[in-house]
Amino acid sequence: MDKDTLMDKITSLAKRRGFIYQGSEIYGGLAGTWDYGPLGVALKNNIKDSWRKTFVSSQLDMYEVDAAILMHPGVWKASGHVDTFTDPLVECTKCKRRFRQDILKIPGICDDCGSPVTEPRQFNMMFSTKIGAVEDSAATVYLRPETAQGMFVNFKNVVDSFHPKLPFGMAQIGKAFRNEITPRDFIFRVREFEQMEIEYFVRPELWQESFEKFRTTMLSWMGSMGIAMDRVHELEVAEGDLAHYSKRTIDFEFDFPFGRKELYGLAYRTDFDLTSHKLDCVDEETAQKIVPHVIEPSFGVDRTVLALLTSAYTEDTTEVDKEPRVYLKFAPSVAPVVCAVSPLLKNKKELTDKAEQLFAILKKEFGNVMYDDNGNIGKRYRRQDEIGTPYCIVVDFDTLGENPDLLGTVTVRDRDTGTQQRIAVSELVNFLKKSLI
Amino acid sequence: MDKDTLMDKITSLAKRRGFIYQGSEIYGGLAGTWDYGPLGVALKNNIKDSWRKTFVSSQLDMYEVDAAILMHPGVWKASGHVDTFTDPLVECTKCKRRFRQDILKIPGICDDCGSPVTEPRQFNMMFSTKIGAVEDSAATVYLRPETAQGMFVNFKNVVDSFHPKLPFGMAQIGKAFRNEITPRDFIFRVREFEQMEIEYFVRPELWQESFEKFRTTMLSWMGSMGIAMDRVHELEVAEGDLAHYSKRTIDFEFDFPFGRKELYGLAYRTDFDLTSHKLDCVDEETAQKIVPHVIEPSFGVDRTVLALLTSAYTEDTTEVDKEPRVYLKFAPSVAPVVCAVSPLLKNKKELTDKAEQLFAILKKEFGNVMYDDNGNIGKRYRRQDEIGTPYCIVVDFDTLGENPDLLGTVTVRDRDTGTQQRIAVSELVNFLKKSLI
Repeated sequence: MDKDTLMDKITSLAKRRGFIYQGSEIYGGLAGTWDYGPLGVALKNNIKDSWRKTFVSSQLDMYEVDAAILMHPGVWKASGHVDTFTDPLVECTKCKRRFRQDILKIPGICDDCGSPVTEPRQFNMMFSTKIGAVEDSAATVYLRPETAQGMFVNFKNVVDSFHPKLPFGMAQIGKAFRNEITPRDFIFRVREFEQMEIEYFVRPELWQESFEKFRTTMLSWMGSMGIAMDRVHELEVAEGDLAHYSKRTIDFEFDFPFGRKELYGLAYRTDFDLTSHKLDCVDEETAQKIVPHVIEPSFGVDRTVLALLTSAYTEDTTEVDKEPRVYLKFAPSVAPVVCAVSPLLKNKKELTDKAEQLFAILKKEFGNVMYDDNGNIGKRYRRQDEIGTPYCIVVDFDTLGENPDLLGTVTVRDRDTGTQQRIAVSELVNFLKKSLI
Repeated sequence: MDKDTLMDKITSLAKRRGFIYQGSEIYGGLAGTWDYGPLGVALKNNIKDSWRKTFVSSQLDMYEVDAAILMHPGVWKASGHVDTFTDPLVECTKCKRRFRQDILKIPGICDDCGSPVTEPRQFNMMFSTKIGAVEDSAATVYLRPETAQGMFVNFKNVVDSFHPKLPFGMAQIGKAFRNEITPRDFIFRVREFEQMEIEYFVRPELWQESFEKFRTTMLSWMGSMGIAMDRVHELEVAEGDLAHYSKRTIDFEFDFPFGRKELYGLAYRTDFDLTSHKLDCVDEETAQKIVPHVIEPSFGVDRTVLALLTSAYTEDTTEVDKEPRVYLKFAPSVAPVVCAVSPLLKNKKELTDKAEQLFAILKKEFGNVMYDDNGNIGKRYRRQDEIGTPYCIVVDFDTLGENPDLLGTVTVRDRDTGTQQRIAVSELVNFLKKSLI
């Protein structure tokens, strides 16, 4: 499929079905901001829950924090962001449109009208605002452009409260903001986004061991989420391209419809961050002061959503009814809707009563369950396929005992194969639970 | 206890034990911002999960969204925030300090030096920032001062994607920002905070029924969380004090150490919001266009944390060892740490092996579990009491069969009573699960 077509299809499906809407849409939209609808919220929550479980709560040495988005300017001076967190900005000499120099389609020439552009100037990507009662006396503060610094500035707090031994890590899930010159590619390059980051503190001589461990865990987590691993590529950042504080960085790139782009990063940041903030701790083993070195695995929630949508988007013709369809082949543990419950017919009270009863049980157990009695069964299957619901459960006359052998069973239709099996109502919760592991 | 002392004790405990730290503390702090440490994160997650389960995922008619924090200025013009979301600001004529007029201790006189203050002027509490590539041509946008508008502007999107029938609701959990003139009272009056809000859309003539239903559910949810209900007061806002768009509002007030203050709100907002944004929908029953009316239950996550800390903070002397102690009597479902596992002695491998094995099982099952082998058992109990851990589990020689009758059992010590019981290891997960309901 043509790559623009695929992006259009994904964007349109995401909006139509309630995953993702343009931010402030009814006021003409605000470029680079997106609002998540109910299915997008469920998908994001599944991603964040899985990440937290894998990288934080199942680990013995991880400390999660939730720092404020508004941070003191001193943080960003120390971190280098005030001076160097910039993109090269150019302006068209004719139509005055502005671009990021490094992504112009033809270097030096306006993407819109083809005229020459100005020399680049450095544009700081941090959003600033004034805090305090009166503009003229108020302090300028920044919206954090990354969650990372929220962890570093709480390093001492966590050490003082919990006395962790090296190695240990801090984790954070939260919003970050960057005033991108040209937001683009749907939820890929945006001005407001959500990160999941870890800062893992190690003895300098042991950094490689932790780096390798995270590399492996990151890959296996991606796979478990249903990211198409044949589209994931590890880019070992060349020594000359490394940030000045990094000794090694791997970019995990993904083949998005608009090209191979960074999905996640894994960086060895040496002692740059703690030294910048003048922080250290006592190494229990040696009873000496030490500045731990940092391994930083960094994930974007929104990019994960986009990688999952891209991995899951499928057009095919089912074996069963030979009709073309679109479906999202989400892993069941990630799918925003666990299952949909339907009565075979909408106007038979004995069917709807039973279906509603079953729906209530499953809703209580799993939360994200849909009830769908609209249109015929085929149409309901298509609707659920399109949002990636793994199972459609239908209450029919056999459920009620028309065929006595099937009394108390329901039809469970599999999204990917379109095939159906009968399962006893009493077994359903267990069946679904197993599929979610 | 003296109210200032109590606040000091809660604030100090929250910092020392890793619940809540001052924002940007190592750079001198940023007034009105707070960073949550690991125990604070766990507490907030428990609050949010419980709220989502009660008000959203167990309901058949709720649609959760997650809108961007940066919103188009048109939203805030329509909502009235640009013109009227202000506090009255006065300045001391002598020392030039600034105050919110309505909270001066003696009206008209500076709280600091006692000199007269200026006439009030209206100060808009929204944080603004510039979006786009160059300051002079960039657009001013606002950080949302409430999550509510993020739902209203997505009303049409949700209607188009899900075709809900009236009544139905939208829900959102997320950050909001207000440039308070005088942030104060720990996490009560802050510049960055987290809200949980619902906008429930009803036929105009049926508003009272939904209002009453939410009133009841809000009260029962507060109780289930462990908020001290004898400190909760319903304030029926008098007609003359209602916002111009509201026909009825209840403030749920709580007796904080610094006084009786608003904890949550429940407002009947008529058709003000949808009309302001020029929104309507088709009522399926009548096939007519309709502007639904809105019931808005509104909750602050941080205020919930503070109400829970205040409700839970207890000083007593246990029956068992007659020593004074501080403990947080959190409901087990809310407590940041489900249980702590200890070996009786730190230097007996057979005990530590068994304890670590049990810890791994419980950690996998519940996530927020602590391992504590520091100091003697009495000290460990005190430490866990202070962070509100409901159960301390100790592996001792009887666990290993010193008393054959007790083989495979552990000591489970109850936080509130200090009493101990022996429970079989094989029964522990069930025991803890039951306590969490």
